[in-house]
Amino acid sequence: MIFKRKFRVRWVDTDIAGVMHFTNYFRYFEACEEEFYRSLGLDLNFLREEHGVLLPRVEASCQYKVACRFNDEIEVALSVKEVESKTVTYEFWILNEEEKAAEGTVKCIATTLDWKVVDLPKEFARALKLARNTTI
Amino acid sequence: MIFKRKFRVRWVDTDIAGVMHFTNYFRYFEACEEEFYRSLGLDLNFLREEHGVLLPRVEASCQYKVACRFNDEIEVALSVKEVESKTVTYEFWILNEEEKAAEGTVKCIATTLDWKVVDLPKEFARALKLARNTTI
Amino acid sequence: MIFKRKFRVRWVDTDIAGVMHFTNYFRYFEACEEEFYRSLGLDLNFLREEHGVLLPRVEASCQYKVACRFNDEIEVALSVKEVESKTVTYEFWILNEEEKAAEGTVKCIATTLDWKVVDLPKEFARALKLARNTTI
Amino acid sequence: MIFKRKFRVRWVDTDIAGVMHFTNYFRYFEACEEEFYRSLGLDLNFLREEHGVLLPRVEASCQYKVACRFNDEIEVALSVKEVESKTVTYEFWILNEEEKAAEGTVKCIATTLDWKVVDLPKEFARALKLARNTTI
Repeated sequence: MIFKRKFRVRWVDTDIAGVMHFTNYFRYFEACEEEFYRSLGLDLNFLREEHGVLLPRVEASCQYKVACRFNDEIEVALSVKEVESKTVTYEFWILNEEEKAAEGTVKCIATTLDWKVVDLPKEFARALKLARNTTI
Repeated sequence: MIFKRKFRVRWVDTDIAGVMHFTNYFRYFEACEEEFYRSLGLDLNFLREEHGVLLPRVEASCQYKVACRFNDEIEVALSVKEVESKTVTYEFWILNEEEKAAEGTVKCIATTLDWKVVDLPKEFARALKLARNTTI
Repeated sequence: MIFKRKFRVRWVDTDIAGVMHFTNYFRYFEACEEEFYRSLGLDLNFLREEHGVLLPRVEASCQYKVACRFNDEIEVALSVKEVESKTVTYEFWILNEEEKAAEGTVKCIATTLDWKVVDLPKEFARALKLARNTTI
Repeated sequence: MIFKRKFRVRWVDTDIAGVMHFTNYFRYFEACEEEFYRSLGLDLNFLREEHGVLLPRVEASCQYKVACRFNDEIEVALSVKEVESKTVTYEFWILNEEEKAAEGTVKCIATTLDWKVVDLPKEFARALKLARNTTI
């Protein structure tokens, strides 16, 4: 399953080079991830408040291909790459006018609120695995 | 008392217009406020963890005079304008090469961790009043 | 005319107090302003590239009423308050579950690319005045 | 040569999890890079304005080990990993109380102002190579 969501590049996302600052690609990866959870009926607030579980990142990477600019409508795509007992890894890519502007990977780990590593809550892991295995 | 601290404008602070984005002036106001607390031996972590008190903003304003640019060394000045039982109001201004680049006001209110308005902790209020009344 | 647009509060918008950082309200004001221009067929890229005109902010202010939190769907409303020959002033407010979470004002001035103050381009000013005078 | 610079984690850097948001580690990598250029007498403004050269990122990655928190004084270390004709790759790591909090890599490519890939300006490349080869 590839989850996609469109976003608009904002003035504040740009820098003096006239393009989106490299850190902001990660912000859009994360915005897409948040919409992905919503689409599955998952909720990071529920995870935190009811399960006492956070999903901090242990790895993040991005390769930049083509600059995104103010007012561009970009499409962020998310694919669940791997679900392990305590981690989930996402692949992201950003399409700008059909062209791949950037691609990256983000790996999250489940922890308690005081940062002890734990298993992903069962339903959460199950939903992610289902999303990974679903075609389309 | 006027508390001053120097900061360097970063690439990420700029936007496509080639200057610091207007929201980032508030970030430097806040960075100066944090250094001001440190200079007084006050600690927002202590306030939150020991007193259960937060200092959310109820008002923030800025007037922009001269654009700040990448690599500029700016000096942020803070003055305690008013300390009331539950609020503290700061005046800020930013100097860039001796010129006033911006000036603004930020008003903070004391609340519990679940956002009920409370009195500023006594020693905190006292330190702020002292800073307000100190010349130089 | 009141222009409204919905946005979703992101994880990255929040801070250690568990709520949206005060600077990010201004980011959403600006995102709404950008969508407002789009709705009128105006384009800040065109303004910059064809007219050589920028719209830097000379004043920005916000009053915070109720904290916005991660995953909240907020509605930002924009109203053109005043259009003068060289400036436009907007009023903004943010609704969160029908409640006013914040309200503010942003004043923009037209300048050349090297920051000399100029008149707002005619069609731009006309469109803004029309928006100001339109009911609904 | 390992170039190091200390920074203070700001309130605005944190998120609802109570720790520095993962994107902000890249901001501190970049702040350190900017100070590194300054230490060498290099200037990205000069590069842009006189040489017409930008240094956009083509790759960025970070591995997160230990969360950084509000008010932590972090030390960012930079090492020049590789200088090629058109690119420079940096390794970064962040120390927090002697502990490695994060480490990452950022690869930059030289381009003209309209994004054609070019050679790094000679003196710029020479200074970077010298920094790479200098012990201590």
